[in-house]
Amino acid sequence: MPRLDLSADVVALTRQLVDIESVSHHEEEIADAVESALRTLPHLAVTRRGHTIVASTDLGLGERVVIAGHLDTVPLNDNLPARLEDGILHGLGTCDMKGGDAVMLKLAADVTAPNRDLAFIFYEAEEVDSVFNGLRKLTESDPDLLQADFAILMEPSNAAIEAGCQGTMRVDVRTTGERAHSARSWKGVNAIHLAGPVLARLNDYVARQPEIDGLTYHEGLNATGIRGGVAGNVVPDECVVEVNFRFAPDRSEADAEAFVRDFFEGYDVTVTDLAAGALPGLDRPAAKAFVDAVGGGVAPKFGWTDVAQFTKLGIPAVNFGPGDPMFAHKQDEHVPTEHVERCERILKEWLS
Amino acid sequence: MPRLDLSADVVALTRQLVDIESVSHHEEEIADAVESALRTLPHLAVTRRGHTIVASTDLGLGERVVIAGHLDTVPLNDNLPARLEDGILHGLGTCDMKGGDAVMLKLAADVTAPNRDLAFIFYEAEEVDSVFNGLRKLTESDPDLLQADFAILMEPSNAAIEAGCQGTMRVDVRTTGERAHSARSWKGVNAIHLAGPVLARLNDYVARQPEIDGLTYHEGLNATGIRGGVAGNVVPDECVVEVNFRFAPDRSEADAEAFVRDFFEGYDVTVTDLAAGALPGLDRPAAKAFVDAVGGGVAPKFGWTDVAQFTKLGIPAVNFGPGDPMFAHKQDEHVPTEHVERCERILKEWLS
Repeated sequence: MPRLDLSADVVALTRQLVDIESVSHHEEEIADAVESALRTLPHLAVTRRGHTIVASTDLGLGERVVIAGHLDTVPLNDNLPARLEDGILHGLGTCDMKGGDAVMLKLAADVTAPNRDLAFIFYEAEEVDSVFNGLRKLTESDPDLLQADFAILMEPSNAAIEAGCQGTMRVDVRTTGERAHSARSWKGVNAIHLAGPVLARLNDYVARQPEIDGLTYHEGLNATGIRGGVAGNVVPDECVVEVNFRFAPDRSEADAEAFVRDFFEGYDVTVTDLAAGALPGLDRPAAKAFVDAVGGGVAPKFGWTDVAQFTKLGIPAVNFGPGDPMFAHKQDEHVPTEHVERCERILKEWLS
Repeated sequence: MPRLDLSADVVALTRQLVDIESVSHHEEEIADAVESALRTLPHLAVTRRGHTIVASTDLGLGERVVIAGHLDTVPLNDNLPARLEDGILHGLGTCDMKGGDAVMLKLAADVTAPNRDLAFIFYEAEEVDSVFNGLRKLTESDPDLLQADFAILMEPSNAAIEAGCQGTMRVDVRTTGERAHSARSWKGVNAIHLAGPVLARLNDYVARQPEIDGLTYHEGLNATGIRGGVAGNVVPDECVVEVNFRFAPDRSEADAEAFVRDFFEGYDVTVTDLAAGALPGLDRPAAKAFVDAVGGGVAPKFGWTDVAQFTKLGIPAVNFGPGDPMFAHKQDEHVPTEHVERCERILKEWLS
């Protein structure tokens, strides 16, 4: 088992984590390394569930902050081991999100007498189907371990605060016709032609941009796929438009579904995936204090992240982590070392 | 090698042919059987090219008729051997088109002193890409063997005459956008949405139905496929609508292409396949005589068939064969024995 050196600086520690391969469903080695490093710290109580590790203080400080990061990465793409060049650390997981994990480990090791109780959650399987998600599993198996006044998810957000997140919903919009040989097409009904008005509605869609807690969210309704066709000489009897609705966090799941069903009224709509967003919660005292500590502006998070898991538990949560999310899942994934250092510095100051 | 018994009745002979498996590209065995049967007939000169057999009389009769049929079938679908039940012969190839082949063999064997010179063409690979088509190859390698005043293609047409055939053209109509993450969709351009107006035009299409030689053809313009999409969280940058244009035989290939390009003006159109139709040619004396001999009406052929190969050589040609073309390529392919017998009787009378 590789050993992590918690006395190394945060960039060196990021590099150590990156060089332990941990593609989703293969987190055992990195989880072992993280667990054994945390168990050397006497001020923390460590719990493990699968390859998810929770390390908590219990100082009775009256306020608790959860800081979370996933340990897994998307598949290898010829981008390991890590490579440091001109202040940029390159490699799989540098941005999404071992830079954030390294910050968490440094906080765990160095902030031995925090001003708020802390719980660090290193979890498995964020990059795959949500049934495997370690944080989601924990919300079901051990909700007590997550109880907190505020949560910080260290997903890449350019070392600035991105608050809340938008929800996401997928539906299949299906048209049905009648097959015929294309040489006698008038004997059939072309289901692809029938999908024309579905695309026309999508073309005419105007995005809602609600302001919530001073942040402007931006919804989106898009065909992300379309399929239809039986053979080159057949009038097809089915066409399916796959639609993704990204909705602002002031909508519930039910509200989002009602909107989409109404939008495609007259068509066969099947919901294939639905996850509510998370309200920014910037009116909550713990969140306000953190925003003041970080300084600078707060941006809305457009993509869905696991902050929504905390919202389900009634815990305000923000995204705050090193790295530009545009480079997550890219072959040339990378993180500026300055981001990692800045996140470490800000959080140490806030928690000390 | 199986042997064919040319003294058997035409239904028994159909059954013999059906029971020799001959999926496209596997016609050697059936071609061997047909060739050796024909070589027992002293009034015919036999030529073989690949698995295509031509058997001709050379009586100097001043008029020549070609009768053609393909030997291959589409793939097996648990529908062999042949099964005779209540006057219907079931099995792969019964309809498309070994009933017609059996009629040709009976004519070859029994009409030893025809009133017109004859050429029988049994050819390979009609059911696959046209580069393999035995009749097409023959038009290029041995056009002399096909010279005739009139041609009969024994494709299934309910034992009645279907004249000419419509042309067929395939195009890809492509829209191009710009990729973006679907959580920030306003940063991209959705190529599937851009395909909406393409489908709208197809929806509004009104089919031309020209009358040619007293027959009413019926064109058709249909999406036979549509594809687009990168991933469930990506605004896609490309969408392709596959369109099949079936056009009346008064249009040339160039005319058909011009129509389609004009119809989709403003879009990127790529022609992927184009085959002209065949004019009915019912004004030609040989064709007229045959129509009179068969009696009854003449229908237009909507589907494309190899009659177009003869048209390219300036030879009027019709479809006339046993079986309902709606059952070609179906698991329950079958032919009424009455159709096979009627075709044999009519042709024998006309040629004797």
